[in-house]
Formats: sequence, C-alpha cells, structure tokens
Amino acid sequence: MEVKQTIIVRKDLDMGAGKLAAQCAHASVLSFLEAQRVDKDIARQWLDSGQKKIVLKVEDEDSLKKLYEAFKFKKIPCALINDAGLTQLPPGTTTTLGIGPWDSAAIDQFTGKLKLM
Amino acid sequence: MEVKQTIIVRKDLDMGAGKLAAQCAHASVLSFLEAQRVDKDIARQWLDSGQKKIVLKVEDEDSLKKLYEAFKFKKIPCALINDAGLTQLPPGTTTTLGIGPWDSAAIDQFTGKLKLM
Repeated sequence: MEVKQTIIVRKDLDMGAGKLAAQCAHASVLSFLEAQRVDKDIARQWLDSGQKKIVLKVEDEDSLKKLYEAFKFKKIPCALINDAGLTQLPPGTTTTLGIGPWDSAAIDQFTGKLKLM
Repeated sequence: MEVKQTIIVRKDLDMGAGKLAAQCAHASVLSFLEAQRVDKDIARQWLDSGQKKIVLKVEDEDSLKKLYEAFKFKKIPCALINDAGLTQLPPGTTTTLGIGPWDSAAIDQFTGKLKLM
C-alpha cells in the first residue's frame, strides 16, 4: 500500500508564498499527529519512505469544508486549519486541510480531480 | 519562554508555490519530531500554543547550510531537507531548513536579520 499526505489549499485567499507555506506546514504537522494517533504503522511507513506530500487547491471555503466532512465521515485522519489571523487574514479564516498520511488510493477517491497548487 | 518554529527557504531555487509549501511542510514535520525527541515539553508547549511558525528566506544553498551547521553546533533541533527530485528540481537539491520548535530568542540569534518569505 502506498501512503501519502495530501494538503489542500483555498486558492481564493491569494495567500503570499510564505503565508501559504506556513499554513500548509500547520496542516501537515496536525494531520500527521492525528494519523499517528490512529495508526502508528502508517505514520511510521510514511516517515520511512520519505514523507510523500501533494499540495492541491480548491476554489473556496465551502469546497474545503465539504472535503473535510467527507474525510471525517470515512474516518481518514485529517486536520482543518484556521489561521490565527496575526497577518494577512482575518482571525479564524479556514485556510488549508491536511489529510493523512494514509492509503493514497483512499485519499484520491475524494481528491483525484483536484489540480496541483 | 516563547517557543516557535522557523522554516528557512532558498530563494534562488524559485520554487512554485505548491513545491515550496511541500518542502516547508517536510522541514516542519522532521524538525518537530527532532524537537520532540530532544525535549517533549517544548514540543508540547508549541502544539498547545498554536504552533507558531515563521518562514524566512536566504540567498542560496551555502547560506542555508551555514545556518544548519550553526544550529547543530548549538544543539538546537533542526532538519535540513533534500528534495527527492521527482518534480522541478534535481534529486538531492537542498531546499529548506526547519528549526525547532525551540526558544524563540535562541533561534533569533542566528536568523534575526533574515527577511520573511
């Protein structure tokens, strides 16, 4: 089984490159910790195989939240990130969604049609 | 003590936004795991206080590697990331450096003059 982590970004926020990178890193760390809590072996396999990560984009907040609900429903570890709002964005703005590391094929069921960021 | 994680990016590589975000997320996860190994309390404090992260930039590979050596010398947890080279960059290209989470002031000693990405 191939495992990967997928990070999904709202493109409508037009975040600067540094802001975007920080929000993706938040999603990555929190989703990793959630995956590790749920299945230590998958988390370990992902680290040992070079932490494959893919960054994709969606149109808006609604699309991001629907994906979050879908992954939660399937009990796939994920983390939805709200920005603290210290720079660029209003506090609590939903920015990114981290999913996995988890079975690549299970993630792709919902994200297979999204475009790379 | 304020704790934060700092991620430093090579600006000479001109990575696309998604590539940059993925490399920063690699640095963030690996440096977090290293910090957790060295000092569980600092890692926990950082998670509980909202995972403060700053993304900074340096001119080139040489600058990035010198910073890495400086943090290693000071025994501050950090992780230097080499890209797997599947897209955009030649395999093994050094892209980013993750530092901490650790005492903010200790990190700033070396990075205080760098600009935000």
